Amino acid sequence: METATGKIDEEGMIRRLTEEWVDALRARDLDRMMKNYSPDVTVFDISPPLQYVGAEAYRRKWEQMFKSIEGPIGYEVREMTVTAGDEVAFCHCLNRISGKMKGGKGNDGAWIRVTVCFRKVDGRWMVTHEHASVPFDGKSGKASLDLKP
Amino acid sequence: METATGKIDEEGMIRRLTEEWVDALRARDLDRMMKNYSPDVTVFDISPPLQYVGAEAYRRKWEQMFKSIEGPIGYEVREMTVTAGDEVAFCHCLNRISGKMKGGKGNDGAWIRVTVCFRKVDGRWMVTHEHASVPFDGKSGKASLDLKP
Repeated sequence: METATGKIDEEGMIRRLTEEWVDALRARDLDRMMKNYSPDVTVFDISPPLQYVGAEAYRRKWEQMFKSIEGPIGYEVREMTVTAGDEVAFCHCLNRISGKMKGGKGNDGAWIRVTVCFRKVDGRWMVTHEHASVPFDGKSGKASLDLKP
Repeated sequence: METATGKIDEEGMIRRLTEEWVDALRARDLDRMMKNYSPDVTVFDISPPLQYVGAEAYRRKWEQMFKSIEGPIGYEVREMTVTAGDEVAFCHCLNRISGKMKGGKGNDGAWIRVTVCFRKVDGRWMVTHEHASVPFDGKSGKASLDLKP
């Protein structure tokens, strides 16, 4: 993608990758979700462990996740900001994931904070780091799942 | 800083900024801590709110934090990885913050995950986004404060 000035629209490419990832998630298509992750990605995820090292480990988390959610998975992205150089980029946004856990009830979902960091490898943007979280209340020690953007 | 090949060592600069920030935190020197934050930084922090928008709001959080911790503040950084282009950079690490809350007991501290994202503005690396968190256990809803790297 090129802008009117002929410069490659790196920001637009990052946005498109993110849209494709969300489409793949809704379709429960793991291969498509994982195709832009670097094999050595480090992921700080919403729930333990402290970190996943490597795309394979992170992929297994999603496999488990898909087994435990029945029916459609909702995923909404808000307030996305993209910063892209020629070789390094990052984006952050507030996302809401919702669905019905097996044997449980459906819910409106919780808002999570997501940061995705990219490096260009052989001309292709790859995710080398991702960080998703919910803040927790210091007094109760509980995750704050009812915050809204 | 230049490398042997004459290229500016952007990665080394990011590492140095981080070391300076940790020094400033231990010294409770807010001005020094905040000097490399962009005025429009977006911070996803360990505890609510969902996000801080702007360096001023984030600075006030640290002011409160310093009031509630008495005595020395411990801060350890591990497994830091830096990815730096010419204009955009990010780093991530596992950090342990410890201290004695006023009227409370000292503790060994919890390991947190930290991602810091930078953009070069007028030749200077500035933090435009930061994300710090602890994962939470989906069953208990509680933050997992006892995980170790």
